Amino acid sequence: MAAPGSGFWTFGSENGASEPENPNTAKAWCQVAQKFTGGISSKLCALLYGDGEKPMDTGIKEGAKPEDKKLACVCDKKPCSCQKDQINYSFLYSTDLLPVSNGEMTTLAFLQDVVDILLQYIVKSFDRSTKVIDFHYPNELLQEYNWELSEQPQTLEDILANCRTTLKYAIKTGHPRYFNQLSTGLDMVGLAADWLTSTANTNMFTYEIAPVFVLLEYVTLKKMREIIGWPGGCGDGIFSPGGAISNLYAMLIARFKMFPEVKEKGMTAIPRLIALTSEQSHFSVKKGAAALGIGTDSVILIKCDERGRMIPSDLERRIIEVKQKGFVPFFVSATAGTTVYGAFDPLIAIADICKKYKIWMHVDAAWGGGLLMSRKHRWKLNGADRANSVTWNPHKMMGVPLQCSALLVREEGLMQNCNQMHASYLFQQDKHYDLSYDTGDKALQCGRHVDIFKLWLMWRAKGTVGFEAHIDKCLDLAEYLYNRIKNREGFEMVIDGKPQHTNVCFWYVPPNIRNMEDNEERLNRLSKVAPVIKARMMEYGSTMVSYQPLGDKVNFFRMVISNPAASHQDIDFLIEEIERLGQDL
Amino acid sequence: MAAPGSGFWTFGSENGASEPENPNTAKAWCQVAQKFTGGISSKLCALLYGDGEKPMDTGIKEGAKPEDKKLACVCDKKPCSCQKDQINYSFLYSTDLLPVSNGEMTTLAFLQDVVDILLQYIVKSFDRSTKVIDFHYPNELLQEYNWELSEQPQTLEDILANCRTTLKYAIKTGHPRYFNQLSTGLDMVGLAADWLTSTANTNMFTYEIAPVFVLLEYVTLKKMREIIGWPGGCGDGIFSPGGAISNLYAMLIARFKMFPEVKEKGMTAIPRLIALTSEQSHFSVKKGAAALGIGTDSVILIKCDERGRMIPSDLERRIIEVKQKGFVPFFVSATAGTTVYGAFDPLIAIADICKKYKIWMHVDAAWGGGLLMSRKHRWKLNGADRANSVTWNPHKMMGVPLQCSALLVREEGLMQNCNQMHASYLFQQDKHYDLSYDTGDKALQCGRHVDIFKLWLMWRAKGTVGFEAHIDKCLDLAEYLYNRIKNREGFEMVIDGKPQHTNVCFWYVPPNIRNMEDNEERLNRLSKVAPVIKARMMEYGSTMVSYQPLGDKVNFFRMVISNPAASHQDIDFLIEEIERLGQDL
Repeated sequence: MAAPGSGFWTFGSENGASEPENPNTAKAWCQVAQKFTGGISSKLCALLYGDGEKPMDTGIKEGAKPEDKKLACVCDKKPCSCQKDQINYSFLYSTDLLPVSNGEMTTLAFLQDVVDILLQYIVKSFDRSTKVIDFHYPNELLQEYNWELSEQPQTLEDILANCRTTLKYAIKTGHPRYFNQLSTGLDMVGLAADWLTSTANTNMFTYEIAPVFVLLEYVTLKKMREIIGWPGGCGDGIFSPGGAISNLYAMLIARFKMFPEVKEKGMTAIPRLIALTSEQSHFSVKKGAAALGIGTDSVILIKCDERGRMIPSDLERRIIEVKQKGFVPFFVSATAGTTVYGAFDPLIAIADICKKYKIWMHVDAAWGGGLLMSRKHRWKLNGADRANSVTWNPHKMMGVPLQCSALLVREEGLMQNCNQMHASYLFQQDKHYDLSYDTGDKALQCGRHVDIFKLWLMWRAKGTVGFEAHIDKCLDLAEYLYNRIKNREGFEMVIDGKPQHTNVCFWYVPPNIRNMEDNEERLNRLSKVAPVIKARMMEYGSTMVSYQPLGDKVNFFRMVISNPAASHQDIDFLIEEIERLGQDL
Repeated sequence: MAAPGSGFWTFGSENGASEPENPNTAKAWCQVAQKFTGGISSKLCALLYGDGEKPMDTGIKEGAKPEDKKLACVCDKKPCSCQKDQINYSFLYSTDLLPVSNGEMTTLAFLQDVVDILLQYIVKSFDRSTKVIDFHYPNELLQEYNWELSEQPQTLEDILANCRTTLKYAIKTGHPRYFNQLSTGLDMVGLAADWLTSTANTNMFTYEIAPVFVLLEYVTLKKMREIIGWPGGCGDGIFSPGGAISNLYAMLIARFKMFPEVKEKGMTAIPRLIALTSEQSHFSVKKGAAALGIGTDSVILIKCDERGRMIPSDLERRIIEVKQKGFVPFFVSATAGTTVYGAFDPLIAIADICKKYKIWMHVDAAWGGGLLMSRKHRWKLNGADRANSVTWNPHKMMGVPLQCSALLVREEGLMQNCNQMHASYLFQQDKHYDLSYDTGDKALQCGRHVDIFKLWLMWRAKGTVGFEAHIDKCLDLAEYLYNRIKNREGFEMVIDGKPQHTNVCFWYVPPNIRNMEDNEERLNRLSKVAPVIKARMMEYGSTMVSYQPLGDKVNFFRMVISNPAASHQDIDFLIEEIERLGQDL
């Protein structure tokens, strides 16, 4: 093989022409390769003409002239990453990457190596023979590895090592046996879209800095409103940083609708407001009330039935009660898919009550919104079309990468009026395009992360029918789990009946506890079972599922399925793993 | 060359063994290739053994059996993407990607092709001969391309085309001549880190689902507090979705510190609160006050001097005034780096006043915080160490990809007390690890996007000295611009003196206006110059810079430099481009 510096590759720019080659060897192959698309031909050429023995060192060595690290490629692929394998990262730093002049090749090689690390991780994520997590306690992880930040730079070799280490200890959220959160799975198109979003590196402030993304948000929000059932898809909305903020937005807009003067004069100028939501609703309703200056005491928790659904008669009773006290009920947050039970509040009955008492109806469908995409399951959200606002997180049931949460608002313009500050230094009014696309002033945020592209691209790739199939499959799996354990020895269901969502709540009762009397001691022992099994699961890294107490019910497992990688076998595995890890307790 | 199905590659899994090959041809080359690291050897082998004439079709064709699309690779690289160039995406859908069984190869090839699109875009972004933006008006863009979402899926070929189209119309935020926003540039290590973050696809809710990221947030926030100057780096903090939310957090915590009962009882239970900030502060202070139920009327705007700095004597005067009215001044937000002028409020004088009147001192250093990394410039934030809270956006001056904003709080535990809701169903208290790492309950959000990794990895790659060099360079460039135009014909500075930050504010006065009398008509004509030049810049796509009016000053250009790709030549280009595009006005 040719020595470094001869043949196809030339050092520096002073010698751009290639030397004569032997047509019987490398060049013949290289010419064949030129017929192919993609980056392979250039890689092949680089390979064939490079030093065959060991990677060529392109970093700065002590005593070496800076020019020595610059290799000029003469292949016909621009950009090319021909010399990727000839780069020695232990001599290179971030300052050798773009935008430095001549940094193109090193940059492409570096990014490609990062991508190779990511691709390996992705393949492993879906491999059932790998651990869901290589769990280490915080103090162990802090000691095992130096995570500190220092004055001096690290080499790109170190940076690649940092990436590998970070992923080594990461939880594989796409793993078919990861069931711990409402957001699980790793969608390949969504991931590709998120990589593109990072590369575009802009925000949703104005049309001029995010033209396509602003339009895609417009198109997608309209589609989501159509699916909710608002006539013509009319209304408003925004993608916000998560369901809690979407719920906060809803409460903020509802308050403004009833008392627009609150924007200038604050809460002291208006009557005491009351928000109502079920006792099993998400804690963000209370967080929002605390933040907005309403106060958590003004959030009334409505009773639920045994399956976790808000009881409408209790809602009406409490509304009448607070009105009698002279307070103003302004906001009812119904939940479509509660966090623990996956319950759907009876939206039609709630809508009737909200209409009767002229109260803003919000539907927190952060978790359940995805079911709107399924002809089989969307009836569970019947009545959502009567809401004034809906929170819907595609990053949960629809498998869009984190974060992707939408707030949809029925009345157009309200959001803008509620949040705009008319900062002319930020939103110039004499620009040369239609300013209705400058959406920044209707947000609480100034810059806003681009969360839309991954949802939009996934929707294009799957179609509405693809989301429907995904959701139907997850609900089928939940029903499968329910059927497998409802009569199985050692398992007790927390609520009776078929699951409404993918939440399946159950206790595992180890043999030693099974025959105990139903008293305090039994409950006390049972409450310790789930935490111990969970800790063991994590130490084995075999699977992960959540547990929690709720009301008077001691710790139970809450299984949820949103991961499209999960199969019947994984459900069977979970059941058997719980038995295996808990039988001695 | 061997026909499809023979040689190295076998179809399906029923024929895993390779047929005998001629050692004088492909295999010999393939064996050479095996010596190399990276994915090249497998790609080379695939290339040499594949169909040399046209890409092999691995999609489902009408009438073809589903098995036909499954190719089994027998190379020694796992994961491999050997057959990338033999995949015909026009027959493939997202359902052919992982987690589908046998989806590995298609997935790797698809993701690699997306990455190739991104790499091309990255290289173009830094190329001065490309446009900053290929600008189209919203209605044009909506008509030129079908962005709609439909029932049915698109092929992966369409998805790749969607990616290309999206980037075609995107603004190149890394382009050396993109100066439009406070956040510009595209850092390669930051980008790699963001790709990894997307791949890890988790959130900052609890240690169990984000062990490494939670620790890195802990390490990085501590380092940032040390740099601010808080003893031992003690205190608290969080990465939030942008500076506006960080400022909202600060106001929320300040209110809670003074009146903890507000959390339960709301604003009606406490006296009328007053927040104070300069008239040139960011609009998020008012947005925050509106959201928190304080009201924008309760935000008092303090006068600034001619360079945009808050006048401390006016601050004290207004504090005394509102106290006399019986209101409670609870929050002063000083700005370190205003949006338009880049002014730094006199923090020491403000700290003295806050101390005297026992008011929470917040420093909004979203834009100026980066200067803390520079030994030459950090004096401009002297007094920040006396603040109770600091907003600092590494996604602005430090070039971290969007979004990355930190709120740092001096008092530990306050954030947790202010925001926690003790939701035991979300934050189980009987877990097997140190629960102080479950940071979710101190946030307003429930799930929270992982914004830490890109900052942490960039810091490792650059070292503190690397950030310092970046900041010093940007400030040098701003001074260069100032020196180039301060006495240049046709340019008028909006404020006198050397820039404190990278903001340089100026009017371009076209020849026709230069000799007009200084009256209404002149101002009226001058106010239209910047918008027209900006519109022309965007239509040419040559560069982008912001403009705005401020107070009694008509539209002027605000140049800011945070892009490490910018050079002296780009500054010269901007000056000449403004002259070229504006000389006829």
